[in-house]
Amino acid sequence: MKRYRDLAPSLRTIMTPGPVEVDPRVLRAMSFPILGQFDPEFTDIMNETMDMLKELFQTNNRWAFPIDGTSRSGIEAVLTSLIEPGDRVLVPIFGRFGHLLVEISERCGAEVITMEQEWGTVFEPEAIVERIRETQPNLVAIVHGETSTGRIQPLAGIGKACRELDALLVVDAVATIGGTEVRTDEWMLDAVIGGTQKCLSVPAGMAPITYNERAEAKVLKRKRIERGLRDPAAAGTAEVAAIRSNYFDLSQLQDYWSSARLNHHTEATSMLYALREGLRLVLEEGLTERFDRHLYHEQALVAGIEAMGLRLFGEASCKLPVVTCILIPDGVDGESVRGMLLQEFGIEIASSFGPLKGKIWRVGTMGFSCNKKNVLLTLGALEAVLIRHSFQVNAGKAVQAALDMYGRDVR
Amino acid sequence: MKRYRDLAPSLRTIMTPGPVEVDPRVLRAMSFPILGQFDPEFTDIMNETMDMLKELFQTNNRWAFPIDGTSRSGIEAVLTSLIEPGDRVLVPIFGRFGHLLVEISERCGAEVITMEQEWGTVFEPEAIVERIRETQPNLVAIVHGETSTGRIQPLAGIGKACRELDALLVVDAVATIGGTEVRTDEWMLDAVIGGTQKCLSVPAGMAPITYNERAEAKVLKRKRIERGLRDPAAAGTAEVAAIRSNYFDLSQLQDYWSSARLNHHTEATSMLYALREGLRLVLEEGLTERFDRHLYHEQALVAGIEAMGLRLFGEASCKLPVVTCILIPDGVDGESVRGMLLQEFGIEIASSFGPLKGKIWRVGTMGFSCNKKNVLLTLGALEAVLIRHSFQVNAGKAVQAALDMYGRDVR
Repeated sequence: MKRYRDLAPSLRTIMTPGPVEVDPRVLRAMSFPILGQFDPEFTDIMNETMDMLKELFQTNNRWAFPIDGTSRSGIEAVLTSLIEPGDRVLVPIFGRFGHLLVEISERCGAEVITMEQEWGTVFEPEAIVERIRETQPNLVAIVHGETSTGRIQPLAGIGKACRELDALLVVDAVATIGGTEVRTDEWMLDAVIGGTQKCLSVPAGMAPITYNERAEAKVLKRKRIERGLRDPAAAGTAEVAAIRSNYFDLSQLQDYWSSARLNHHTEATSMLYALREGLRLVLEEGLTERFDRHLYHEQALVAGIEAMGLRLFGEASCKLPVVTCILIPDGVDGESVRGMLLQEFGIEIASSFGPLKGKIWRVGTMGFSCNKKNVLLTLGALEAVLIRHSFQVNAGKAVQAALDMYGRDVR
Repeated sequence: MKRYRDLAPSLRTIMTPGPVEVDPRVLRAMSFPILGQFDPEFTDIMNETMDMLKELFQTNNRWAFPIDGTSRSGIEAVLTSLIEPGDRVLVPIFGRFGHLLVEISERCGAEVITMEQEWGTVFEPEAIVERIRETQPNLVAIVHGETSTGRIQPLAGIGKACRELDALLVVDAVATIGGTEVRTDEWMLDAVIGGTQKCLSVPAGMAPITYNERAEAKVLKRKRIERGLRDPAAAGTAEVAAIRSNYFDLSQLQDYWSSARLNHHTEATSMLYALREGLRLVLEEGLTERFDRHLYHEQALVAGIEAMGLRLFGEASCKLPVVTCILIPDGVDGESVRGMLLQEFGIEIASSFGPLKGKIWRVGTMGFSCNKKNVLLTLGALEAVLIRHSFQVNAGKAVQAALDMYGRDVR
């Protein structure tokens, strides 16, 4: 037999837009022995997690629970449960993850209508509202924080327009949840998908979602109890618009997460322990305090980047506070810089996708990774690596600029 | 803010057909700090895990990797990638999880043909082969170990018939993988889905799968590169039979797991650490030795159950070695017995589904939970609880019978 070595991952400073470093309390939570899925102690943990998710999503919705899969599993669960084949779906696109919403909606059988903004900008909400009025979609799906370009889309007003026209508004808040405001109820969002491995700083593997009664009504219309569990007399009803996925069927999932506890999958125990602990950390810190912390370290990072002589990518007014996109200077090999950062300093930053591949670096300041030590280490290391790549930095300025920012509070 | 208490799950003896207890080495693996998804150290771990999975599945297939979701996510990934709408799918049903295969296949748009055996029995392989010849399906989907009834379906001969008729054979080995033989190549299985939370004793949240070139050919026929990643000039090709799910699209997943590393989801880091460690434990023990251990403790459990005066459910010749189904005696409230076992002894056993609900208990002897201590404690506790429920047991006999079985090797 081939021998496999002991697991011994290196300790990294992870400054990407996810996955990011995980709080030791969350890591510890995953190391607890597991409970059975219908053990009353475990179902209590499920219920507590739902309550905490409602606080995170700033909602009074009845339903808020994780999908057992990575972030895009949450997006697919919501879209496949809410889109009936033939439904008209409007997707405003301003980066890679808008295209993902199109991709998933198309696979759900939707007639997809798109509108596009240049990568690095976002939409005026009024432009989206106008297009909603014009196209009368059944559902609007939009990204809140677009990590591929580092932009954040203002959502105010879109929800109201959707309600007036009886459309559902689905928001991909994978990158923003826990890092900046996501006001589900106030903004009239019908379904929201969050991510764990970004601002919540829980490992990838779960996707928290929430949805309101408007979304639930659509789901229940398509409800079908699983064969082998349902009363045979009830078989054959409501087959017409059945949800195309069993794993992602919200009507079944909400029964599993309700007091009925109708068996569906086996809940991912250790990941749920992790999510619960990550949510406890968020709520202990406080949402406002947490969002302020993200802004605070972003400002220090940006000050350092600019002092170094680098330029930011994209429209400043819609910069996503948890991701900073840096233009790779002419003549510098972006991948070589990233490689040296990782190999020599153990620091990971990200590249980007599509039209921005090779053009920008992306630095995340998310969750547990969003701290002074990480910002200062990253600036110092990036300067050293750029000097090694013969780029003329303003040597010594970056870390000082960040320290100046921090100094305002320290002194 | 509402205060949430520290996570402090009770220690349980979990003797259900999953999820079962997790080896402390696996729990520890999940507590390691995470790596980024494209960190070379992490992609090495991905590659090692694929190699280990090939040993587990006893296959030389190129593809063996986990789906990021619970077991049924693996089933759905395979079926949704292999079934084109309109395909004819044959599902032999002998318990609840056969119905799940029908459920998922129907949602994939298949024309499903079923054949049913009474719960507690299995099919003669020849009967399945005959039905395959008769119905000429595109795909046959069958459960190997049916936990709802505690039966194991012999698979020999079915694969050969499928090849002769150009049908794909998909096997749900969620309950059997790592606990009893699953010979992917020798039995000519085209795709196999394993479970983590049963005989592998890794928490729920991943579903290892493998598939061969025959299955891959069907997947590649339907391949479509994700919008936002694909060359725009290639857009619009092969839209006809596109896979209906993005998350479960094996053609995209295999690109992510290949050296191309084409970005799809963010791999579930900590769960992958857990799976890798669980697989290491399996391979260190040895497959044959592990299967023998499962048989050994099953025999002791069965000896104890029978000595106590209880009767087993189902046809003995096809008993699943890792699940023992016990008929609940007349006049005994099965749920009350289960509740007392959990509350007073911290031991969890399972009930069943559908026609067997309230009729049988199910005791798992799976993976890390499959050990002498657990078998002896369970027998002793069950006896005590049954006496408390006024059932006339042969007092004192059960544990002695198990000790006698163990004694053969001990002395």
